[in-house]
Amino acid sequence: MTKSNPGNFFEDFRLGQVIRHATPRTVTVGDASLYTALTGSRYALFCSDVFAKDCGFQRAPIDPLLVFHIVFGKTVPDVSLNAVANLGYAEGRFLEPVYPLDTLHAVSEVIGLKENANGKTGVVYVRSKGINQHGRTVLEYVRWVMVNKKDTGAPAPAASAPSIAAAVPPDQLMCPSALHFARYDSVLAGSPYLYGDYAIGEKIDHVDGVTVEEAEHQIVTRLYQNTAKVHFDALAQKESRFGKRLIYGGVVISIARSLAFNGLGNTGWILGLNGGRHVSPLFAGDTIYAWSQVLEKAEIGGLGALRLRLVAAKNKPCGDFPDRNEAGEYDPSVILDLDYWTAIPKR
Amino acid sequence: MTKSNPGNFFEDFRLGQVIRHATPRTVTVGDASLYTALTGSRYALFCSDVFAKDCGFQRAPIDPLLVFHIVFGKTVPDVSLNAVANLGYAEGRFLEPVYPLDTLHAVSEVIGLKENANGKTGVVYVRSKGINQHGRTVLEYVRWVMVNKKDTGAPAPAASAPSIAAAVPPDQLMCPSALHFARYDSVLAGSPYLYGDYAIGEKIDHVDGVTVEEAEHQIVTRLYQNTAKVHFDALAQKESRFGKRLIYGGVVISIARSLAFNGLGNTGWILGLNGGRHVSPLFAGDTIYAWSQVLEKAEIGGLGALRLRLVAAKNKPCGDFPDRNEAGEYDPSVILDLDYWTAIPKR
Amino acid sequence: MTKSNPGNFFEDFRLGQVIRHATPRTVTVGDASLYTALTGSRYALFCSDVFAKDCGFQRAPIDPLLVFHIVFGKTVPDVSLNAVANLGYAEGRFLEPVYPLDTLHAVSEVIGLKENANGKTGVVYVRSKGINQHGRTVLEYVRWVMVNKKDTGAPAPAASAPSIAAAVPPDQLMCPSALHFARYDSVLAGSPYLYGDYAIGEKIDHVDGVTVEEAEHQIVTRLYQNTAKVHFDALAQKESRFGKRLIYGGVVISIARSLAFNGLGNTGWILGLNGGRHVSPLFAGDTIYAWSQVLEKAEIGGLGALRLRLVAAKNKPCGDFPDRNEAGEYDPSVILDLDYWTAIPKR
Repeated sequence: MTKSNPGNFFEDFRLGQVIRHATPRTVTVGDASLYTALTGSRYALFCSDVFAKDCGFQRAPIDPLLVFHIVFGKTVPDVSLNAVANLGYAEGRFLEPVYPLDTLHAVSEVIGLKENANGKTGVVYVRSKGINQHGRTVLEYVRWVMVNKKDTGAPAPAASAPSIAAAVPPDQLMCPSALHFARYDSVLAGSPYLYGDYAIGEKIDHVDGVTVEEAEHQIVTRLYQNTAKVHFDALAQKESRFGKRLIYGGVVISIARSLAFNGLGNTGWILGLNGGRHVSPLFAGDTIYAWSQVLEKAEIGGLGALRLRLVAAKNKPCGDFPDRNEAGEYDPSVILDLDYWTAIPKR
Repeated sequence: MTKSNPGNFFEDFRLGQVIRHATPRTVTVGDASLYTALTGSRYALFCSDVFAKDCGFQRAPIDPLLVFHIVFGKTVPDVSLNAVANLGYAEGRFLEPVYPLDTLHAVSEVIGLKENANGKTGVVYVRSKGINQHGRTVLEYVRWVMVNKKDTGAPAPAASAPSIAAAVPPDQLMCPSALHFARYDSVLAGSPYLYGDYAIGEKIDHVDGVTVEEAEHQIVTRLYQNTAKVHFDALAQKESRFGKRLIYGGVVISIARSLAFNGLGNTGWILGLNGGRHVSPLFAGDTIYAWSQVLEKAEIGGLGALRLRLVAAKNKPCGDFPDRNEAGEYDPSVILDLDYWTAIPKR
Repeated sequence: MTKSNPGNFFEDFRLGQVIRHATPRTVTVGDASLYTALTGSRYALFCSDVFAKDCGFQRAPIDPLLVFHIVFGKTVPDVSLNAVANLGYAEGRFLEPVYPLDTLHAVSEVIGLKENANGKTGVVYVRSKGINQHGRTVLEYVRWVMVNKKDTGAPAPAASAPSIAAAVPPDQLMCPSALHFARYDSVLAGSPYLYGDYAIGEKIDHVDGVTVEEAEHQIVTRLYQNTAKVHFDALAQKESRFGKRLIYGGVVISIARSLAFNGLGNTGWILGLNGGRHVSPLFAGDTIYAWSQVLEKAEIGGLGALRLRLVAAKNKPCGDFPDRNEAGEYDPSVILDLDYWTAIPKR
């Protein structure tokens, strides 16, 4: 019998099952520096203790997306080691800031199971939480993945798919209680555009492009301790559908979000993740571009909030906003379609 | 109207204009570790809290060149996004040590403007400062760049070029007041050669070579939050003069300076930058070598100071000290010619 | 006369000589983050302050292998700059935990010298120590390397080879005095297998594979401040036997050890290094796999200890445990054969 982790197959999951994930992680300024160096993020809140204190934080918090990737990475060995496809996430809420030296672990509950008609795979729905050293949930989100069965003869569980919100309603978003923008300095933040300057429906081309190297995506994916083999083993990937290593979708999210600084510089604090779709894969040598669209505006505890759509494309600048056509088919350049909430100062 | 930053064009600058740059940055031990890992620096002052305290510092300060690159990076979106060429820097002075958890921001003043005869570009001179959380200037330097005009019909400003010192005179260099070498341990520092061992005119071959990869220069340039597109977008660069990504000149400076440890191990603390010229570009796959020459010696507050010339070459070891010929033309291998001041213990 | 370091040649070493190595190093959370990001390590002890405190540590200690690589790196400029071959290490003992902000320096004593029959090279044996800011030894090990003579006519020293233990006897291993596993959480650690679950002779395939890029091994080798030219100078290496850069053997050790998490997740704390052999070289683009074998079991101060053999192979998964044949010849895929002791909780 092997002592290496075989991962869970579809028939190993039970509705209501709670999984505590390894490896707990004390997040540090070292992680934050690597995140900056590997994604190019420039949102002032996460770069400057002084700026963050002026917004009510204790010091510069860890970028919510870095928190997301770390928590997500922990779930991989238990949830998606035998996954065929990452189908989506939703209902993501950032509930408390994470600061350097906070320690996170992750817990997932199986909230839905649905075997596919082919009898070979099934969809597993989990609600995952990142929990800090005080036992407080800093992040939660729902994710669903298609997972292989090991034994195709294993009986199918009663099908149960949770109802999933299309977007987190503004009144369910949590702003850090101390967050305020009374002393917000938009010059230091790098953009003059505040809540009132954005119109629903408005599109913003983020202009810049970043070419991704094998070493870069491997380093940052290891920083998240995400162990999915498809990102690291070039030899095994030769036999795969694409013939090469796939870049972790979270790398695309973070680079696209860093590009979005150029046009959305005051949207540093992320409140929620409504949904995300990795439309097609990214490979080393590809160049990422991105554009955003304002989907919704809201006010939360006196602060502005924008619901944004972030679309990333590969090897094609986004001046013409590559998108889905009326038949719902994406432009072949599109790799990511992400829907999220951020806070933004009002004037 | 776009919300992404179009950068300033030549006609957007005004003499005397003061620009506060985004993004403020709390420098951390994470940044210092990345700087070590990406440049190979081994100067003991920046590696060991114990060694640094023995020299009068509170703890290991941030390498002055890392401070320089961070401050420089902040100026890029405002000063050189539309630059054609980086023409030079001068009058650089490191005024106070930066320690981990200090927060820096950058401010530039336009001190000169000179439109070129072609009416398409002009030279912008700025004096840039890095300022810490106490409002104290830790670094200042003058830089001049050739910047495109957006509207070639825009009227030329009155030409004004500042007078720029060929080198910072020793009496204008600032040694950190606490710095002393009474307990300096040159064995731990890695070199037996002190102030008295260096002769004016002496040349030192630094022997070692380092090949630079795309991932490496992109990671370290993002650490500096330098967003110049030429370093990151391989697709757009295909249309450029060189057909590929250019490596940020600051990467060359720091790698050459790290190579210079081998022969100049006791010159850790940098006092000033007299001037620098990026003679020709570096690309991924190239190998950097370096040599130094002692230009001047001085004593500052009881400490020794060496004015050094650091020459980096690509794809050619520097045993024969590749240089300018009498006609002033550089050997084709030369990529950098830097002139700077360092402190060094006397016996 | 050159001021760059020529390194020591065989005839420069003297029996009993003590060498204090440059550059002292304050190890930080930044180094720990980079180690995680570049090796993929997931042992909970080094990732979580909370988990480490529950095991009696003050906070998450620095991974003993990171300590080893940092200490080893310091010895390179003095011991192996002119080495032809790294022959082995032995008698490695980790004596005290290293925490972030501890400062290490390294000292080596020459304990053996043996000129080879060809008169061109000789074997140098050193005992190297990593010493912290309190003057306490945190790590010691013996290493022997074949070093070139500069002057083949230099007289041979009296041959003296130290007696070297085949393995560190369990009663000479040092467990950190505070280390205990009373509150050990194997779910968070990521593996259910404890001391009693491992049988002497048992083999474990670690399943996963990692492809190594040039940028990755260069970055992590620079983090260790290991300056051996063969790892960094692609141009010079064109003239070498292999025609390209060699990856530092310590990179192989750490990646293989990170792969070993998958099957040995509770063996985080390393007690000793009995021996190691870099069977053949690794190059960028190669993929590392690994397997382990349990060699011996012991109890130390109430804790379990496993003596493990870690074998790494390149470009070949380890499901069939590639090994030496009866003639003592290694399977051509094998690159590393390491013998070490770890602590592990008992039930």
